[in-house]
Amino acid sequence: MLTLILTESALETIPERLWTYRSIQRYAKLRRKSPEFVVLDRSYHHAAMKRLEQSEKRGRSDIVHFALLEALGSPLNKEGLLKVYVHTISDCVITVDPTTRLPRNYNRFVSLVEQLFKYEKIPPQSTEKALLTKKRQTMPQLISEIKPSYLLAFSRIGKPCTLEEIVSKIPLESRPVVVVGGFPHGHFSETTAKLTDDIVSIDSDMLETWTVTSRIIYEFERAISLPKKRLNK
Amino acid sequence: MLTLILTESALETIPERLWTYRSIQRYAKLRRKSPEFVVLDRSYHHAAMKRLEQSEKRGRSDIVHFALLEALGSPLNKEGLLKVYVHTISDCVITVDPTTRLPRNYNRFVSLVEQLFKYEKIPPQSTEKALLTKKRQTMPQLISEIKPSYLLAFSRIGKPCTLEEIVSKIPLESRPVVVVGGFPHGHFSETTAKLTDDIVSIDSDMLETWTVTSRIIYEFERAISLPKKRLNK
Repeated sequence: MLTLILTESALETIPERLWTYRSIQRYAKLRRKSPEFVVLDRSYHHAAMKRLEQSEKRGRSDIVHFALLEALGSPLNKEGLLKVYVHTISDCVITVDPTTRLPRNYNRFVSLVEQLFKYEKIPPQSTEKALLTKKRQTMPQLISEIKPSYLLAFSRIGKPCTLEEIVSKIPLESRPVVVVGGFPHGHFSETTAKLTDDIVSIDSDMLETWTVTSRIIYEFERAISLPKKRLNK
Repeated sequence: MLTLILTESALETIPERLWTYRSIQRYAKLRRKSPEFVVLDRSYHHAAMKRLEQSEKRGRSDIVHFALLEALGSPLNKEGLLKVYVHTISDCVITVDPTTRLPRNYNRFVSLVEQLFKYEKIPPQSTEKALLTKKRQTMPQLISEIKPSYLLAFSRIGKPCTLEEIVSKIPLESRPVVVVGGFPHGHFSETTAKLTDDIVSIDSDMLETWTVTSRIIYEFERAISLPKKRLNK
């Protein structure tokens, strides 16, 4: 069983200090929502976002969308061998049920996230099993809950190491956790970095979050011979 | 050098026979475009699409978007070792320059494609190098232009074979081409199937186009030891 955490992800609703901006209010009105229930998106809120701290790490919900689609659609997840969490830059943690079928359409995904931020679970106000749940939680709190036997993070400034080499060690662990940044630029915070056992760099260049996610999962599948097992079923 | 073709992709502008539908006209008006210049999208045109032939294979531009992001962002592409074509269900072929930086935002990608379908190249009316070009071309025409030494296609109903096994053979070829369906359901047309040397199935389940794309490229990189080479640079 592999646990994947997208950390410090660029997914949040519009922060309070931007609510009064004319461009934000116009956008929220168009979406027929109050700014506090609208997802921050660099494509539309670029100008206003200049006022935010760590602006370059924020407002990219597409990163979480693609990375989750890669994770949830993988054979590893279909075998029930993957657990996925999304930690956000504003310290929320979204728990994703493995059976969740996310919308492929980006706009529908954003609407779903807006519902999640409003009601804290999807489906909201239902007694059924929640597919997505959201709570306030920091990375240290999440990690102390998961209690990983080994925590491996991926970063451009980590120790150079091929993915194959590092991932081949993971199946020997009892509770392995891999951490990938859910943000477009910059690096892990000090807080996140301190939690890791290893930080590795698998390419000389920056790779997109969804690419790293997809490759880690595939390499883990290879390490446990899942491709062969599934074909021989 | 690897050539990737997304074939029979679910990417097209709204077909003429739907232009008179009220729901289509309303949507086009909202987008401030004539229906002939609007991309067909199942998320919004589902009801009208029931009238189309092969409806289940159409109106999923997100598939091409994600798969192209995976392809263009790969180390293989950054090394100049990947060539990408998108063949569409209505027999157009889009040639993608390796240096193209596609919008990450889905709505901006759709607008770009709408421009491409209107002006046949991006940037339009420019003397600069075109990043995307579109022309009318069938799969047999494209293949006779590329002249592959080996054409490998991926399909749920192909011969079961692990990705590692099949891709390890590709680097021995002089002009290998891999073909992945750019549609959500169904199988290759007879026309496409006839062009292939091998059709393989790499999982017991249907995998998403972007997942297969990402895995093929990564496996090819492994087969040519690119991960190690890039780290040692």
